Amino acid sequence: MTSFVKNAWYVAAWSREVGRTLLSRTLLGEQVLLYRREDGTPVALVDRCPHKLAPLSLGELKGDHVQCGYHGMTFDCTGTCVRVPGQQNIPPTARVTAFPLVERYGAVWIWMGDPALADAGTIAEVPHYGDPDWGLVDGQYLHFRSNYLNITDNLVDPAHTTYVHKNTIGNASGEDVGVKVEQGESHVLAWRWIHNAPPVPLVEKMGNFSGLTDRWQYYYLHLPSTSYVDFGCIDSGTEPTEDNKDRGFRSFSFNFLTPETATTTHYFWLHLRNYHAHDSAVSADVARLMTLTFEEDAALLAHVQREQERTGVREYTRLGIDNAPARIRRMVDRLLAQEAALAGSQGDTRVPAGVCGA
Amino acid sequence: MTSFVKNAWYVAAWSREVGRTLLSRTLLGEQVLLYRREDGTPVALVDRCPHKLAPLSLGELKGDHVQCGYHGMTFDCTGTCVRVPGQQNIPPTARVTAFPLVERYGAVWIWMGDPALADAGTIAEVPHYGDPDWGLVDGQYLHFRSNYLNITDNLVDPAHTTYVHKNTIGNASGEDVGVKVEQGESHVLAWRWIHNAPPVPLVEKMGNFSGLTDRWQYYYLHLPSTSYVDFGCIDSGTEPTEDNKDRGFRSFSFNFLTPETATTTHYFWLHLRNYHAHDSAVSADVARLMTLTFEEDAALLAHVQREQERTGVREYTRLGIDNAPARIRRMVDRLLAQEAALAGSQGDTRVPAGVCGA
Amino acid sequence: MTSFVKNAWYVAAWSREVGRTLLSRTLLGEQVLLYRREDGTPVALVDRCPHKLAPLSLGELKGDHVQCGYHGMTFDCTGTCVRVPGQQNIPPTARVTAFPLVERYGAVWIWMGDPALADAGTIAEVPHYGDPDWGLVDGQYLHFRSNYLNITDNLVDPAHTTYVHKNTIGNASGEDVGVKVEQGESHVLAWRWIHNAPPVPLVEKMGNFSGLTDRWQYYYLHLPSTSYVDFGCIDSGTEPTEDNKDRGFRSFSFNFLTPETATTTHYFWLHLRNYHAHDSAVSADVARLMTLTFEEDAALLAHVQREQERTGVREYTRLGIDNAPARIRRMVDRLLAQEAALAGSQGDTRVPAGVCGA
Ligand code: FES
Ligand code: FES
Ligand code: FES
Repeated sequence: MTSFVKNAWYVAAWSREVGRTLLSRTLLGEQVLLYRREDGTPVALVDRCPHKLAPLSLGELKGDHVQCGYHGMTFDCTGTCVRVPGQQNIPPTARVTAFPLVERYGAVWIWMGDPALADAGTIAEVPHYGDPDWGLVDGQYLHFRSNYLNITDNLVDPAHTTYVHKNTIGNASGEDVGVKVEQGESHVLAWRWIHNAPPVPLVEKMGNFSGLTDRWQYYYLHLPSTSYVDFGCIDSGTEPTEDNKDRGFRSFSFNFLTPETATTTHYFWLHLRNYHAHDSAVSADVARLMTLTFEEDAALLAHVQREQERTGVREYTRLGIDNAPARIRRMVDRLLAQEAALAGSQGDTRVPAGVCGA
Repeated sequence: MTSFVKNAWYVAAWSREVGRTLLSRTLLGEQVLLYRREDGTPVALVDRCPHKLAPLSLGELKGDHVQCGYHGMTFDCTGTCVRVPGQQNIPPTARVTAFPLVERYGAVWIWMGDPALADAGTIAEVPHYGDPDWGLVDGQYLHFRSNYLNITDNLVDPAHTTYVHKNTIGNASGEDVGVKVEQGESHVLAWRWIHNAPPVPLVEKMGNFSGLTDRWQYYYLHLPSTSYVDFGCIDSGTEPTEDNKDRGFRSFSFNFLTPETATTTHYFWLHLRNYHAHDSAVSADVARLMTLTFEEDAALLAHVQREQERTGVREYTRLGIDNAPARIRRMVDRLLAQEAALAGSQGDTRVPAGVCGA
Repeated sequence: MTSFVKNAWYVAAWSREVGRTLLSRTLLGEQVLLYRREDGTPVALVDRCPHKLAPLSLGELKGDHVQCGYHGMTFDCTGTCVRVPGQQNIPPTARVTAFPLVERYGAVWIWMGDPALADAGTIAEVPHYGDPDWGLVDGQYLHFRSNYLNITDNLVDPAHTTYVHKNTIGNASGEDVGVKVEQGESHVLAWRWIHNAPPVPLVEKMGNFSGLTDRWQYYYLHLPSTSYVDFGCIDSGTEPTEDNKDRGFRSFSFNFLTPETATTTHYFWLHLRNYHAHDSAVSADVARLMTLTFEEDAALLAHVQREQERTGVREYTRLGIDNAPARIRRMVDRLLAQEAALAGSQGDTRVPAGVCGA
């Protein structure tokens, strides 16, 4: 069984998916029930009745409470049992874990680790979200049949775009351009500039370049699994200031990975662009082309996952471009070790009083 | 691997399913071949040739004998090999186990334990079976993706009808009515009366009640897995004598559970009623509504089974209504321990001479 | 995990299947990539990039080389990496295993053991292949859901034809005719003559016999898994010289088994006949009838495999007809032990210089 980093915010669902019907989703190997209180506040509980393990998602909402569909035990939104039909006393074991949630960027974020450490300030920042001058494609989702770390490998690996995505965001001019890596407290950045190159297919289609371009790829990975890609191009020779980049063809692409199981991953993504910001046809095109791009990754990584399972190894040969992925793996291992150490010395993991107003 | 109680009668098939074609069915984790002799007597053999393990059900009947479809070894209905093509001597290992069968209530009952203990007198009694004044729905079958003990839990648990079956045999008036439990040598009974209550949907549809009713639910479970439910209602305030109950709205429902594997169960059922006994439209309605009811159980218990497998536990919290299920589990554990002890001290498990006339 | 005999030639594919597109196939539990060089020479490499395990078959051919579809590492047809995009040095681990191949009888044969031992002279001989006086059905394929040794059992077991193939190549007259067995250095032969018998259905349809026949079945199994069946019939009483047999109704049937996994097998087959050699309608009929015959085996052996997995045993009772299968199992066990001993004392398993001209 893979361990997952628990003390982190993950996207549990897009906001529009969570409402007054009961939604069940596997997150970090656990069954999670999602719904909204009558005032709209989202709630997340373990989706398993402590009585005979019936999924609570097969029951029904009673106001802000959820009633098990098997024998009617009723839980409030902190996971505390408030009613056992047919008996007065409520056993002390009659509770399910509740998870802190935050709603931001059109998504419901979940914290499945120690609730005392849940600080909404550590959720990734998405620049220009809601900025009318930037075009937005959001609420996108793909299911990957691969462990999430194969995907984070991929998302700090600009080199693969040349081969995997030659129909959209890569082309041959990047083949021999090296990648530089920087590491922060909780992120890794892999980046390169490709100079004097023809635009990639997507830019050729959407942009307005007559000659060669200088193209940048900045791949950030915030631990454990939030990816942020700053991608764009300008006319060859233009000075690469932020202002000039904003005047060029630029996009910010966010991929929020939430492990589902050890071998599958939820892939939530959104995309911001500074071109044709108000053109919904362009939004539809971007959605289509990026979906195509990520489906290429998904198909490839499903095979990689299968071969890893077959052979029991992750790679035989390490290349220069593996610098960033290797750093992420080390940082994740360190986080897992810290969490394991904490778990040893820890007691109560209940939701602290006040997180839910029930 | 779950152990199953072997020294017990289980329904192997409905009588109409067994004939002169070879029927293969998994019962208690074993492959069983069922067919009839030319005189109509049913036969059950292990469905696996002792030579190279070909299923005998792929072979063919030769009179009362079955001939393997791979190399033609032929077995009589005691499982003894009577022919090996191409050689004169028959190796002593050339035999398959035969199981005692009894035909009753339109079903073929099998005994997969020690044949010396097979006593047809211990088969469940079905009152009013064949009585023209009682309406009958029989020959019904459902497949459950759940261990049989989750189903027996359910079948001594009248409380769940309020939540799981609110469209047919339950309603809200039962929510807070406790359940009483009695235990016999080889059965458990969980029962309750719900007084002054509106009729449940099925009774409302089929019965003739203008006001409130008193409703009874008597759930018997005969070890290891025969369920018998006495259910009915009378006008509120009527004295609850057997005669008055027979004049009210009453049904006897029988569910014969036969474990298929550790995680799946055959669910054979029949239903007797004292209302509209000769109305085949009512029979069709009862068949449809009870199937709906049991399918609700099947769907729920498949989820319970999945969560038990995922977590490795059966329940976290025990409630008052678990008294009867807990008794059954203990009684089954005792039976299994007895059988394990017996198996240690036992030798020959062949069908005794005379059981089969071959 | 079953061991497979590695030091042997197996059919990897029919020649027509291998070309300038990348073909991936599981052979002896390994993923193998097959393609042809520009000059037509076939190439076989492990289908797994040593970098991040992407299947090379998802990449593309660049001349005689294959380029990984993930990051563009490029391998020549000896499996040596000749390019890593973005870096100059090529890590010493950057190689995949290449397998010696030989093309013969319309098939590509692979050697997955020690390449130093690969001697094309040990490939099975197929008499009359290419002889215009013999009718040929070749390029045939079936997939068996069974370990290959259950199939070799079957292919030295003429007795089963009476039962399994009574619609094509068997009939009741063989029921009690014993089988004789001879053993060579690397083959087993099981054979019998059935005298004064009506022709089997296939012969009845295709042959020209008015009375009874003498029929021979010679089942050769060359280790580890090449089957050769000499089958035919002549008018009863004719002297069984080779010349008379060639003047009768005769066929040579070859089945080349290549283990896919421990529980599945590739079944390549071809068939030569001395009757209606130039009649393509007869060829189509033979293809259809033999396919039917082998599908009967496949269906049966899938059940046998399932029962072996369920019970953990291979057979309970040994019969006289198991002499030949038992010899093969022993000879295979000896080969496996030899290979295991060799593997202990062995080093380099790379393709020796010169095998591939890249
Ligand atoms: S399983 Fe939820 S109340 Fe019984
Ligand atoms: S497998 Fe039944 S006779 Fe051989
Ligand atoms: S996986 Fe093949 S080059 Fe990276």
